[in-house]
Amino acid sequence: MKPLRVAIIGYKFMGKAHTFGFLNAPIIYGPQYRIVPKVMCGRHAAEVQYAAEQFGWEETETDWRRVVDRSDIDLIDVSSPGDTHKDIVLAAAQAGKDILCEKPLANTLSEAKEMLAAVTRTGVKHMVGFNFRRLPSVALAKEMIGEGLLGKICHWRAAWLSDWIMTKDFPLVWRLQRDKAGVFGALADIGSHIIDLAQYLVGDIQTVSGAWETFSGERPLEDDPTRMGRVTVPDAVIFTARFENGALGTFEATRYAAGNKDKHSFEINGEKGSLRFNYNDANKLEYFSWDDPERTGGFKAIYTGAPQHTYAGGWWPNGHFTHYGETFVSEMYELVSAIQENRRPEPGFEVGVRCQAVVEAVAKSIEEQRWVRVDELP
Amino acid sequence: MKPLRVAIIGYKFMGKAHTFGFLNAPIIYGPQYRIVPKVMCGRHAAEVQYAAEQFGWEETETDWRRVVDRSDIDLIDVSSPGDTHKDIVLAAAQAGKDILCEKPLANTLSEAKEMLAAVTRTGVKHMVGFNFRRLPSVALAKEMIGEGLLGKICHWRAAWLSDWIMTKDFPLVWRLQRDKAGVFGALADIGSHIIDLAQYLVGDIQTVSGAWETFSGERPLEDDPTRMGRVTVPDAVIFTARFENGALGTFEATRYAAGNKDKHSFEINGEKGSLRFNYNDANKLEYFSWDDPERTGGFKAIYTGAPQHTYAGGWWPNGHFTHYGETFVSEMYELVSAIQENRRPEPGFEVGVRCQAVVEAVAKSIEEQRWVRVDELP
Amino acid sequence: MKPLRVAIIGYKFMGKAHTFGFLNAPIIYGPQYRIVPKVMCGRHAAEVQYAAEQFGWEETETDWRRVVDRSDIDLIDVSSPGDTHKDIVLAAAQAGKDILCEKPLANTLSEAKEMLAAVTRTGVKHMVGFNFRRLPSVALAKEMIGEGLLGKICHWRAAWLSDWIMTKDFPLVWRLQRDKAGVFGALADIGSHIIDLAQYLVGDIQTVSGAWETFSGERPLEDDPTRMGRVTVPDAVIFTARFENGALGTFEATRYAAGNKDKHSFEINGEKGSLRFNYNDANKLEYFSWDDPERTGGFKAIYTGAPQHTYAGGWWPNGHFTHYGETFVSEMYELVSAIQENRRPEPGFEVGVRCQAVVEAVAKSIEEQRWVRVDELP
Amino acid sequence: MKPLRVAIIGYKFMGKAHTFGFLNAPIIYGPQYRIVPKVMCGRHAAEVQYAAEQFGWEETETDWRRVVDRSDIDLIDVSSPGDTHKDIVLAAAQAGKDILCEKPLANTLSEAKEMLAAVTRTGVKHMVGFNFRRLPSVALAKEMIGEGLLGKICHWRAAWLSDWIMTKDFPLVWRLQRDKAGVFGALADIGSHIIDLAQYLVGDIQTVSGAWETFSGERPLEDDPTRMGRVTVPDAVIFTARFENGALGTFEATRYAAGNKDKHSFEINGEKGSLRFNYNDANKLEYFSWDDPERTGGFKAIYTGAPQHTYAGGWWPNGHFTHYGETFVSEMYELVSAIQENRRPEPGFEVGVRCQAVVEAVAKSIEEQRWVRVDELP
Repeated sequence: MKPLRVAIIGYKFMGKAHTFGFLNAPIIYGPQYRIVPKVMCGRHAAEVQYAAEQFGWEETETDWRRVVDRSDIDLIDVSSPGDTHKDIVLAAAQAGKDILCEKPLANTLSEAKEMLAAVTRTGVKHMVGFNFRRLPSVALAKEMIGEGLLGKICHWRAAWLSDWIMTKDFPLVWRLQRDKAGVFGALADIGSHIIDLAQYLVGDIQTVSGAWETFSGERPLEDDPTRMGRVTVPDAVIFTARFENGALGTFEATRYAAGNKDKHSFEINGEKGSLRFNYNDANKLEYFSWDDPERTGGFKAIYTGAPQHTYAGGWWPNGHFTHYGETFVSEMYELVSAIQENRRPEPGFEVGVRCQAVVEAVAKSIEEQRWVRVDELP
Repeated sequence: MKPLRVAIIGYKFMGKAHTFGFLNAPIIYGPQYRIVPKVMCGRHAAEVQYAAEQFGWEETETDWRRVVDRSDIDLIDVSSPGDTHKDIVLAAAQAGKDILCEKPLANTLSEAKEMLAAVTRTGVKHMVGFNFRRLPSVALAKEMIGEGLLGKICHWRAAWLSDWIMTKDFPLVWRLQRDKAGVFGALADIGSHIIDLAQYLVGDIQTVSGAWETFSGERPLEDDPTRMGRVTVPDAVIFTARFENGALGTFEATRYAAGNKDKHSFEINGEKGSLRFNYNDANKLEYFSWDDPERTGGFKAIYTGAPQHTYAGGWWPNGHFTHYGETFVSEMYELVSAIQENRRPEPGFEVGVRCQAVVEAVAKSIEEQRWVRVDELP
Repeated sequence: MKPLRVAIIGYKFMGKAHTFGFLNAPIIYGPQYRIVPKVMCGRHAAEVQYAAEQFGWEETETDWRRVVDRSDIDLIDVSSPGDTHKDIVLAAAQAGKDILCEKPLANTLSEAKEMLAAVTRTGVKHMVGFNFRRLPSVALAKEMIGEGLLGKICHWRAAWLSDWIMTKDFPLVWRLQRDKAGVFGALADIGSHIIDLAQYLVGDIQTVSGAWETFSGERPLEDDPTRMGRVTVPDAVIFTARFENGALGTFEATRYAAGNKDKHSFEINGEKGSLRFNYNDANKLEYFSWDDPERTGGFKAIYTGAPQHTYAGGWWPNGHFTHYGETFVSEMYELVSAIQENRRPEPGFEVGVRCQAVVEAVAKSIEEQRWVRVDELP
Repeated sequence: MKPLRVAIIGYKFMGKAHTFGFLNAPIIYGPQYRIVPKVMCGRHAAEVQYAAEQFGWEETETDWRRVVDRSDIDLIDVSSPGDTHKDIVLAAAQAGKDILCEKPLANTLSEAKEMLAAVTRTGVKHMVGFNFRRLPSVALAKEMIGEGLLGKICHWRAAWLSDWIMTKDFPLVWRLQRDKAGVFGALADIGSHIIDLAQYLVGDIQTVSGAWETFSGERPLEDDPTRMGRVTVPDAVIFTARFENGALGTFEATRYAAGNKDKHSFEINGEKGSLRFNYNDANKLEYFSWDDPERTGGFKAIYTGAPQHTYAGGWWPNGHFTHYGETFVSEMYELVSAIQENRRPEPGFEVGVRCQAVVEAVAKSIEEQRWVRVDELP
């Protein structure tokens, strides 16, 4: 198979993570999944130049429109801030490029729908970067649920707890400003990850009711730390939900949970058993089954590093685990193999749209102080 | 000091637990806290007779009215089902007896208020049996919050997870029937414990929004297991809340969380630090403080069995812990010492009223599908 | 059945713990297991008087010889320091009393053998107080091994970690002086508990090789803290062992493991599965079985509070656990029921002898810097 | 700086792991640490050809002698089985190549010493591949000990528990045969890792006393599974040790600990505090300090993913961790940067020699059933 020629828009945190993914995919999954890192694109020429050299990209660009127009690119990787996603995706789709877009897919539901319409109309391949689906523990949870090991699901509870914003000298980065990051703050940024996992593992969310809060007040400006600026997005959101299959769900996403470092966790209770996951100890999936004798039963600590475990078997002997970076390697493997074999990559943009719909339903429920149906939204 | 003469109404689970508490209080807290177990009262003469002999009560009765009328009784311990609480308390208060009443204080808010009015009017001493306040870990959490170690509190999250109702042959006990247990099911039964802990540790709850569900359907009748009867109370409830001090809260109380055996847990996040508790490992309180250096900081596992720890120091050398039964020993110590020293026992009936108000606000929010203020209730 | 009339020699830590056991046994196990707390005996009249009143013993004595001679006593409970055990037991056996003796049975193997000979000769009932056998998790481990769930056992590893001696102002208590506590220090005091558990769960120990150390140096005298005295027993011991059934064992008992509060733990690996226990979280027994599918298998966290669990079922609903104090309630139940039903209580003095033999073999291995067979000892 | 031209001998498990390390070092640590993957060498031409393509090596060889002779190679990476290490290293040193050699350095102490003499004589740079030193948690432990946070160290306890050999159909791989893997089995293979960590963190081991066992008996031959062959190396070893600084140590390395998947763990207790590490949850280092108030103190769970943490800061935001593979990236960074800056890489071959000396002292103690001083060995 011929190598895939990639251009990436963005060169910071996600630029590094995606590069790590592209570079290592063939080492772990096989030589056929090789990509050619053609172009890295960013607004600041010197910075993107340095990043491209470090990460091994052949060329650089400062204008994403020129990248999209190139004929020697097969895939556009959209890893830039959320307010740029729509324009890049629409142009790339128009140019017939396959597209990987980081989550959240867009800053608003209407943008997200427009993007889905574009890739559907032009027929290009599309994937949204919900990388936590590639954790071996999450993949195993999905499989076990699919095999019926939990039976009918009754409960989902999840929380994403972080605290990086709590220190008073943390600067007013773009994520804290509604004009750049959108109005949803923690709900879209970290909440979207657990909304996606909920819908992936349990099913579609039907109704929601939430609350949010901005605890942080002001933070120093990035370019002049002697001046303060107001945080204009919520630091924390909580909401309850009902799924279409009747399960109840609780959700929390916060940047104000002191001591927790991007710890996300979920528990699922079904009629036949339960599953628990905690990202702090990501290679463990806990499983309770009513099939075990009551006297010697309990939650099992399954370490998901065995050869049988999806996204783990190709790596190292059992006990020698993977973590965050490796999710991108598996994500890129899934993307490249789908493109090479002419399959639809999963999750496609429709998943990003569905996630954004829940985000906006929660926001509406907060505004109107009542339960809101996700399908009420326009 | 003269021993306190006690009569207990109820002889089953709580009868045993309270007896354990009364009997051991002097052994642990000192000989002055001795009670005389005078009368045990229950409807079934033979059963109460057996229980009284096993637990060491001097006499038995089958009619609580006769017990209340006795002149040789100082304290009435109301450990019977919830639908009997009001009448007993009203009569006992009228008779000038001090009263310990098991939680939930009553099946409805109006009953609870009537009971509080009665004990206030007659001036008898009163306590509601929220025994989990007597866990050393909970007591330490209360003290640490009081000392300002968490700063302003931002988040409370708590869940009481159990699964005893999930087995299909579990009988239709009184707790599953709304005419006996009240209409709130898991919300009042187990939810009341975490509502009380929340208000004890964080402060009063202001507004709530919830959802509940009955997953269980039918269960065999107790007296004829070949016939089935419908479960008429919710198995599970979830709700979000805002506290008067601005904190956000999430709550869950369920009998449908497979694999969890009355596991309750909470986490509190404040501006200066966090606390975590999990009843499965009840002698541990986890504490994060921003005062620790970031490089070597993290949640500390405080084992609350040291001499300095309230409700632990009087027991055994550190490392040799206590658990459920011992909470009643400490509860009875608090009750008896308050009576002997003519202080108000804590928590008094006003705490039971406040808890019941939250229960009913949650129920109303569910009915009306909107956020409800606790002080909206009549 | 007629109540058992007990006299206890000792009134401090073990006096309280054993009283707690005797008092609560009928409440938990049934009214027939009632004991009469007749006499508490101790050297200091005023102190024993206070303790007897607090704990509810009818009379006091200051000379154990007078206690042994009384005709209204059925059982002598030897809870005094180790150097007094032999004389009391010999006299009590001669007087035809049944005997409960705290662990370690004696300060030397030859004393222990003499005591065993005495109770054997006189035919009185005897038990040694290895109370940790009464933890529900340990009892379940014993049952599971007996049922063959582990298969042939390959490994035992155990450690008792404490740190109470580390603070520099900790006084030179009797446990730190070889003339009172015997020459073995931590090896006999805390090591004996894990040696007993090892032999209880795995089988007899055949050979040992160890090392020990006194890290502590000097500590303030109890009666004059301005003067220092030397610690004359080892603070810490480590040893390896081979069991008669071929298993390998590692042991550690130390008072110098900062941060550990009498935390003892063990892991047992067999050909069919493994068990793990940690006293910090004593109501959990972890169990791995090769019978589980590799993809969804792992250590199960069995919470040993269910009705089916020995020493737990009689207490509280599952999830509401017991801990240290309750082991004495179950110990006294086993003792009293064996006496009433004319059975041999378990564990008898022969178990104390076998434990002491291992202690002395370890000491000999340390002295001679070589592996020593337990049956080498005279 | 000019890129380092590398040849690797070996292409299986370590071939992949080392490639992963070389490839990602510049992405994480900076573009200057780039290596050129020139030659991959292995005995089976087709297999090494496939591996080289997958991993991105430019050329292949089947004879390591031709590789060593090439003038376009700067560094030889010895990742082949242990019985080949000595010859390759001697030739490479003679040819003036810098050398990375996988652990254990050699199959015998005398070989290891010969190798150290060769690299010392020729002055080439040398490193032995103890990759677990590159775990952020281990690096932090080293730093904290160096800063005196533990004070004088009293205890080390460590175990490497695995179970991959327990399944009866596991084939008789080279690691189970003494003529290929050396006579020490689990002691050298996995024991060497924890011996190295002990000497790295605590200091040199002075005396040892051990025992070992082969539980496994026979296993199917690799090339004909219908026939069985005998396992000729120990499956399990246990030993106790004294360090030169007076600390006591316990060690265990076993392939017969059912349910444990290469789980290694250690605890270090010093006069001022303690550290605990468990590879199953590798990004956590637990730390107890006597400096904390006793009432609110305990083991802290430090998550070692913060920017301040060595080998973690260059990767991802805190909370997004690394694991096994990343240790090789950091190892290669340390190697390449030392070579480029003309420093001695750490750990050098002298560390491999010291580790092997302990291995052989343990073996001698087993043979002679007595304590052996490490410096007794020739």
